[in-house]
Amino acid sequence: MAPSTPYLAVDLERMQANIARAAEAATARGIALRPHAKTHKTIEIGRMQVAAGAHGLTVATIGEAEVFAAAGLDDLFIAFPLWIDGERAARLSHLVAAGAAISIGVDSVEGAERMARAGLAGRVAARVEVDVGHHRSGCAPERAGEVALAAARAGIDVEGVFAFPGHAYAPDARAVAARHEASGLGVAAEAMRAAGIHPGVVSGGSTPSFEAALETDSPITELRPGVSVFGDAQQWELGTIPPTAIALTAHATVVSHAGGRMVLDAGSKVLGPDRAAWASGHGRLLDDPDARIVQLSEHHAVVELPGELPPLGSRVRVVPNHVCMAVNLVDDLHVFDRGDDELPSTRWRVAARGRND
Amino acid sequence: MAPSTPYLAVDLERMQANIARAAEAATARGIALRPHAKTHKTIEIGRMQVAAGAHGLTVATIGEAEVFAAAGLDDLFIAFPLWIDGERAARLSHLVAAGAAISIGVDSVEGAERMARAGLAGRVAARVEVDVGHHRSGCAPERAGEVALAAARAGIDVEGVFAFPGHAYAPDARAVAARHEASGLGVAAEAMRAAGIHPGVVSGGSTPSFEAALETDSPITELRPGVSVFGDAQQWELGTIPPTAIALTAHATVVSHAGGRMVLDAGSKVLGPDRAAWASGHGRLLDDPDARIVQLSEHHAVVELPGELPPLGSRVRVVPNHVCMAVNLVDDLHVFDRGDDELPSTRWRVAARGRND
Repeated sequence: MAPSTPYLAVDLERMQANIARAAEAATARGIALRPHAKTHKTIEIGRMQVAAGAHGLTVATIGEAEVFAAAGLDDLFIAFPLWIDGERAARLSHLVAAGAAISIGVDSVEGAERMARAGLAGRVAARVEVDVGHHRSGCAPERAGEVALAAARAGIDVEGVFAFPGHAYAPDARAVAARHEASGLGVAAEAMRAAGIHPGVVSGGSTPSFEAALETDSPITELRPGVSVFGDAQQWELGTIPPTAIALTAHATVVSHAGGRMVLDAGSKVLGPDRAAWASGHGRLLDDPDARIVQLSEHHAVVELPGELPPLGSRVRVVPNHVCMAVNLVDDLHVFDRGDDELPSTRWRVAARGRND
Repeated sequence: MAPSTPYLAVDLERMQANIARAAEAATARGIALRPHAKTHKTIEIGRMQVAAGAHGLTVATIGEAEVFAAAGLDDLFIAFPLWIDGERAARLSHLVAAGAAISIGVDSVEGAERMARAGLAGRVAARVEVDVGHHRSGCAPERAGEVALAAARAGIDVEGVFAFPGHAYAPDARAVAARHEASGLGVAAEAMRAAGIHPGVVSGGSTPSFEAALETDSPITELRPGVSVFGDAQQWELGTIPPTAIALTAHATVVSHAGGRMVLDAGSKVLGPDRAAWASGHGRLLDDPDARIVQLSEHHAVVELPGELPPLGSRVRVVPNHVCMAVNLVDDLHVFDRGDDELPSTRWRVAARGRND
């Protein structure tokens, strides 16, 4: 029997094709792939990415690192400027003692010195985070040498530099964000060299900027796309991933025709409430590109669509706007060998769900 | 030791005051309170609400009903127009067989007939959902008699009528939404009477419309506020709940001063990404009303605030925009007897987290 709706369904055939496509594109350009596992938080998928050639995984938190390392996926970059208190130092040291190779982000002299004072020198490596236009964390690229030098002087192994061009998440912004990423990382790498530190890894990120980053002549040696393993409605609408490659949907039931519209039992508690200003709605219907989710509550999606409404009780496949948020809302992913299969072949646990700390 | 950030913290003293305040206000008007437990999903809190006089709880899904019923909180209204398939019928029958009193929403003749065909007559009661202006699910109020009659003819016990005035979630909309609720429910109750069915329960909802609903001369016999147990930044900004009554915050650490702003380690994966068009930002800082969260990613909040930035490593308390989404992202709530306590006194499991089905 199919599970009760709503639930998240993975189309295995499509997901495997997405993993292979990213690996092949990076390999063809001689760039290492370190996929961001925050998107799937799932051991089985991390293993497939590494088997396809990924050079380790990226994670966002120590908690995620603990989950993947425990499963043997222990070459990990925590792409976040962690503030190292006693408990975090102990947890990172424990991971390293168990054999994991861990590097973390650092974007300030204070952060670098803190790492060393907490006893991480010789254990955990650092990568300097620089801001290439998203304006979140990260020092200015020209300050990368100063931060790297502080870390090195404190005895920390500085592996390189990284950035997240999150401003690629906007219409027509992918190519320009990839150019900002390349030039910002170039400035940062040069600043590190001027400070006498070799930027062994020059790491960029993001699914929307991925293809442009591969095409751009740039100093990048590694890329960290996350969403591309599944795709989502944001990438569909940005033009990054066509609907035919989207590998994760929420299966939902039509519960009401109130107001002449279709109401589904999948709301923001399974799709995630993300809606960028440029999005056409609160998610898309995989099998009806003309439908629009015009209203989303915690357990309802209200859909307007041309033509006749599907009957009450029918099931539809909803593409979440932002797949990273949807996956983090469920305990399990239901895996269908192909998207049109009637029953799932297995279930995967979202092992790192909720590991924010 | 305090837990690693980010985590959700409950101010027990404030939460208990919120529970008492809602109970007293409803009792003073002779209105039954059936708080919506989707907000907290926590057994301990449901028990406190019932101990304070709540006439049972409201939930959104069968999964939530299963969790609360198993803990003895088994007078439950599932405020959703469930489409009853075989598995749902079996789960509901199982709850009732174990002694639970369950009613569910129905907003169409087909839905009512489906309930009966699935064998729920004499087991599960129905309440007719009507749309009073939020335009989500719910039939038109004047059609409530037709739906109730279909249910009654199929042998279903029809308890009454309900609505959710979700359009109260907008500036200056609370009083008008409460008036729509009162008049729509009045029309619906009258339509049921005209069809020969007594509307025993006339149930309204929503935290923002709660006070206005109590003040309005109306046919309402029951209210179902959810958020009011904690409050959140939306209610603060709508003027429903002052910051001094907000009982849930995310404790976060300052990890970066990038760009001269404060960057916290609490992002949308712990605060929830909800942001209404009228919200001043992605959440508020409980101890700095002038601060604004101007950017939110999965693990970062970027905060602009007047004056000097708090030092790296300091901890701040963030009020999520929409507390129902935040609670559903964590496994546990850390309970502080008072908000300024340094250490939590206990932890509560968010037992119904993720129970979307």
